[in-house]
Amino acid sequence: MQPYLIAPSILSADFARLGEEVSAVLRAGADVVHFDVMDNHYVPNLTIGPMVCQALRNYGISAPIDVHLMVEPVDSLVPQFAQAGASMITFHPEASRHIDRTLQLIKSHGCQAGLVFNPATPLSYLDYVLDKVDMVLLMSVNPGFGGQKFIPATLNKLSQARRLIDQSGLPIRLEIDGGVTVDNIAEIAAAGADMFVAGSAIFNAPDYNAVIKQMRQQLANTTAG
Amino acid sequence: MQPYLIAPSILSADFARLGEEVSAVLRAGADVVHFDVMDNHYVPNLTIGPMVCQALRNYGISAPIDVHLMVEPVDSLVPQFAQAGASMITFHPEASRHIDRTLQLIKSHGCQAGLVFNPATPLSYLDYVLDKVDMVLLMSVNPGFGGQKFIPATLNKLSQARRLIDQSGLPIRLEIDGGVTVDNIAEIAAAGADMFVAGSAIFNAPDYNAVIKQMRQQLANTTAG
Amino acid sequence: MQPYLIAPSILSADFARLGEEVSAVLRAGADVVHFDVMDNHYVPNLTIGPMVCQALRNYGISAPIDVHLMVEPVDSLVPQFAQAGASMITFHPEASRHIDRTLQLIKSHGCQAGLVFNPATPLSYLDYVLDKVDMVLLMSVNPGFGGQKFIPATLNKLSQARRLIDQSGLPIRLEIDGGVTVDNIAEIAAAGADMFVAGSAIFNAPDYNAVIKQMRQQLANTTAG
Amino acid sequence: MQPYLIAPSILSADFARLGEEVSAVLRAGADVVHFDVMDNHYVPNLTIGPMVCQALRNYGISAPIDVHLMVEPVDSLVPQFAQAGASMITFHPEASRHIDRTLQLIKSHGCQAGLVFNPATPLSYLDYVLDKVDMVLLMSVNPGFGGQKFIPATLNKLSQARRLIDQSGLPIRLEIDGGVTVDNIAEIAAAGADMFVAGSAIFNAPDYNAVIKQMRQQLANTTAG
Amino acid sequence: MQPYLIAPSILSADFARLGEEVSAVLRAGADVVHFDVMDNHYVPNLTIGPMVCQALRNYGISAPIDVHLMVEPVDSLVPQFAQAGASMITFHPEASRHIDRTLQLIKSHGCQAGLVFNPATPLSYLDYVLDKVDMVLLMSVNPGFGGQKFIPATLNKLSQARRLIDQSGLPIRLEIDGGVTVDNIAEIAAAGADMFVAGSAIFNAPDYNAVIKQMRQQLANTTAG
Amino acid sequence: MQPYLIAPSILSADFARLGEEVSAVLRAGADVVHFDVMDNHYVPNLTIGPMVCQALRNYGISAPIDVHLMVEPVDSLVPQFAQAGASMITFHPEASRHIDRTLQLIKSHGCQAGLVFNPATPLSYLDYVLDKVDMVLLMSVNPGFGGQKFIPATLNKLSQARRLIDQSGLPIRLEIDGGVTVDNIAEIAAAGADMFVAGSAIFNAPDYNAVIKQMRQQLANTTAG
Repeated sequence: MQPYLIAPSILSADFARLGEEVSAVLRAGADVVHFDVMDNHYVPNLTIGPMVCQALRNYGISAPIDVHLMVEPVDSLVPQFAQAGASMITFHPEASRHIDRTLQLIKSHGCQAGLVFNPATPLSYLDYVLDKVDMVLLMSVNPGFGGQKFIPATLNKLSQARRLIDQSGLPIRLEIDGGVTVDNIAEIAAAGADMFVAGSAIFNAPDYNAVIKQMRQQLANTTAG
Repeated sequence: MQPYLIAPSILSADFARLGEEVSAVLRAGADVVHFDVMDNHYVPNLTIGPMVCQALRNYGISAPIDVHLMVEPVDSLVPQFAQAGASMITFHPEASRHIDRTLQLIKSHGCQAGLVFNPATPLSYLDYVLDKVDMVLLMSVNPGFGGQKFIPATLNKLSQARRLIDQSGLPIRLEIDGGVTVDNIAEIAAAGADMFVAGSAIFNAPDYNAVIKQMRQQLANTTAG
Repeated sequence: MQPYLIAPSILSADFARLGEEVSAVLRAGADVVHFDVMDNHYVPNLTIGPMVCQALRNYGISAPIDVHLMVEPVDSLVPQFAQAGASMITFHPEASRHIDRTLQLIKSHGCQAGLVFNPATPLSYLDYVLDKVDMVLLMSVNPGFGGQKFIPATLNKLSQARRLIDQSGLPIRLEIDGGVTVDNIAEIAAAGADMFVAGSAIFNAPDYNAVIKQMRQQLANTTAG
Repeated sequence: MQPYLIAPSILSADFARLGEEVSAVLRAGADVVHFDVMDNHYVPNLTIGPMVCQALRNYGISAPIDVHLMVEPVDSLVPQFAQAGASMITFHPEASRHIDRTLQLIKSHGCQAGLVFNPATPLSYLDYVLDKVDMVLLMSVNPGFGGQKFIPATLNKLSQARRLIDQSGLPIRLEIDGGVTVDNIAEIAAAGADMFVAGSAIFNAPDYNAVIKQMRQQLANTTAG
Repeated sequence: MQPYLIAPSILSADFARLGEEVSAVLRAGADVVHFDVMDNHYVPNLTIGPMVCQALRNYGISAPIDVHLMVEPVDSLVPQFAQAGASMITFHPEASRHIDRTLQLIKSHGCQAGLVFNPATPLSYLDYVLDKVDMVLLMSVNPGFGGQKFIPATLNKLSQARRLIDQSGLPIRLEIDGGVTVDNIAEIAAAGADMFVAGSAIFNAPDYNAVIKQMRQQLANTTAG
Repeated sequence: MQPYLIAPSILSADFARLGEEVSAVLRAGADVVHFDVMDNHYVPNLTIGPMVCQALRNYGISAPIDVHLMVEPVDSLVPQFAQAGASMITFHPEASRHIDRTLQLIKSHGCQAGLVFNPATPLSYLDYVLDKVDMVLLMSVNPGFGGQKFIPATLNKLSQARRLIDQSGLPIRLEIDGGVTVDNIAEIAAAGADMFVAGSAIFNAPDYNAVIKQMRQQLANTTAG
């Protein structure tokens, strides 16, 4: 498994030139496209759906697409996104009555599956499905609300999640989303994360290449704790 | 009021190059950008939200943007779309408990307002708000479901809506959406429509210019009945 | 088209011996099995689902099964009941956001389709789908609540529905459900109904044969008005 | 039947001294206490429930209490308000799946029953229940939203409702709520209303006696049209 | 307390001859009738409701009936099932906002009460109600979805639940539901279960007597761990 | 921080003379006004909303008002209550999808924020927000249902919550609500509570002064465990 993955969130990209933007950020060294889906029910905002994902595939994007479903309910969108080219699909456990079933559904469509934890959501939702997830995504801001900073308490939660993953011995990614920047990525990695979503930190930077390179340099000096 | 408006639905455009696509279709003679918003609750699909609308404005699109909300509930998205550059906002009366209030809300944000009627929805929802709508949109397919043809019974419903509008003496647009093509646009105009949404008929055509020109020629020969 | 259909509601049958009960009532001259589905959401009761319908087919029941969906939402149960052997499927227009689409869905699964009207529901839901329904079901009691009598105002509503159907020239059944007995069936038929659901009037009678025969005699003397 | 009823809405009273306020307004000549119930679901506000109604009865208020339910769903609150001393209970037809049943439920608890129409709601909801309502309430503002003026189109709607009631020959009250003042009450009565809810017009006046007297003078000169 | 209870799920019985089927399986040695209630909301399926339970009692079934509510919300069905003859009622904690209250409600109607845990649901829902439950039901498949096998991780969860129960010193049943067969029942009992739901394993067997006897033999050799 | 706070619940006050009642109870020595908000959705009852809170402020009540939201969803009422004069706002974690965000929202409006735990709700909802709450409220009865006694298992839960708070070193209030009386307040305080809601125990007492004095005497002899 590659040690660290950088996943720019296209929520900060220019939606009028999305193919171009995503190509550029991947050429600049990003590993994964992070795709934020909001339905104006689970979160108070509506963003983009399966057709936009499909358009990226049609444009020639071949990197993994990491679909983060901020929707409720979850199940009906899973086959739509799988068909539209998603590589990974994550969802919030509060948004599905049948979490084990939804994980199986995602996998049955050939995608990697994961759970996402809001800042206040307890990790106990992992108690009986750790063997069924390919990734765990911790939110370090509240999804669907703008202008927030990295919540510091997430560092402690990352360490706890890292411990659970390491104890399981399973190859589970530990992803972080919200307020990640060049300045705090090393500390976040030290707390246990190995997959980093970054939105404005990358897409608002003048040079995608430079910022991703700086992130990698920060990560290179990290020794996960 | 311009006699006929052609409004390409961007649902059929290439979402990876949306700015370019919309520019092209406007240069080819389209009047209005039709923007289809689905939330996976009012209809079983999720498309695009306010940020995509904003991106079109940032890209330099200055034509009117006609936002069709296939969402439930409606009110929270109205200010978001108004701020993102919407010119017109229409919604389904079944999706709002307070239709008169939602119409006022749209207008208070400086947009034109309208009601959308599903194929089976009675026109009685217009009984007490005709003086508050700038447009009436009749669906000639079921919104949110793919691969449908123009429902013929809509022609009769168009005539009835046209009569209500003419009796009111108010400058209300009568828009039609679903299965409109070069072949049936004259008949639809004859039944009373004066604003035409077309998706695949335009965006899947090899030459946007040619197809819009053909539509205008068809319309030129129409005498509304 | 057979002039009159008698459809015993299995809600009044003995659910411990359902195959036997339904066979008996069909042998006694009933035409159709009326199957009442309640989901404890659209109505405050929960009854029976697709597996019970399938069991009747497996038992050898070959008469038409008329599934009345008192459920919300509607669409997900349609394919399940079609596969379980339903012949006709009716639903309440208030329970579907996309009435035209749900009618099409039922027909695409090879069943006859219809709308059901609660006692207070206006007939305007028929305005634009009369060409798509095989049957119209008027409730003469409030569905899902026990111990009610035939609501007299339904006779007038039946006449209005009969007029709409006759004007259309289409072979649409006009079904009535709630409080139908030997004593009022003639009057109900005179008002325009040609398909009669009866529950306790049949299943609580000592002799199914006798009561159905009495109903037919009453109907024989009727001249629809 | 008393020709005109004046029903001050306690929404504009001082909730810290409600018993005193209601007593005062009744002493000043009001006929009925109008009690506005909002649940933050049917309308975006939450007001007062059954315990406040009961407190008025315990305080010694014996005038009729007219409970306007701006709630969804409706049925569970009906017995609670009946027990708490309500005299009349009205609800919005969009908020109940079983309108006929809810009307029966209200009456079975010994209260008068009625339907409330939002400004845009069609009167077709009355088609089959006119024989079951004791009152029809037309909203002349959107309920649950502050600071609105009387919507002029309501005058026409009042005339239509008046005609339906007169044709029925039944003793049904026609109530109006929203923006009623001394200045427009005569015009509203002329359009057909015979029961008048007034909130700030009464409770914000320096002298309840004077304003109610002025309203009665205006009504005395009216000839219903 | 009887050491082990076998509870055939009638979901796999023939619904056309339910009384006969249930009688047969009880004569063959089953202890309890397991009654699966689905409402097409908590799970995507609709099965059987209170009237079917009542029909079994009327047929003469006197064995305990164990009603598993896969419904949301829960409370309104509790009195209906208690009146229809239920002996035990279990529900999913995610489906009730007031778990302690729902447990009390069940008991106030004279039934035993329990919580059901989906495969991924944490046991922390038991933290403050262990003194109020008569039974704990662990799902070893996802309820409401067909064709699933016993989820192996349930064995570990059973051990944890067993420990909680033993520490409490209370006579709480530990029930298991999903994929139980003659082949794995010993292992499941060893992990701590003492009440076994089996559907197709019993009802699809050629001889109910033989399969129940085999299950009892397997259980006889078990030493709970 | 004052060692113990007594917070009479105005749910037991006389709603016809609320200003007078609240003044009296504050003069009698109460510290805080406890304000119970029910919306007939999160709990099966509807009580009082922001306008009643505002009326208390207008009446001259200057003591802290502790608003307990038994509503779902939560966020839209937060600004309304803050503007109406609330000092503290607590909500149930099951009723908000974004608990961390709702806490921030309350604080951004200048109020103290807290979580409320139903009798069966696990304390794990505190795992990652202890640094963001000003108070923790444990329910010792099920909210929204009448006539209940103090649930004894709450004492143990209080001790656990007290330990979490003490370990955090943060000045967090531990509030208790339900069945608190002069007879059990000492025991409850000994278990760790330092803020006591009491409804009927105070408002139904003949002398508010006497009962609050007795409570304080009981508390004076307590040594928190």
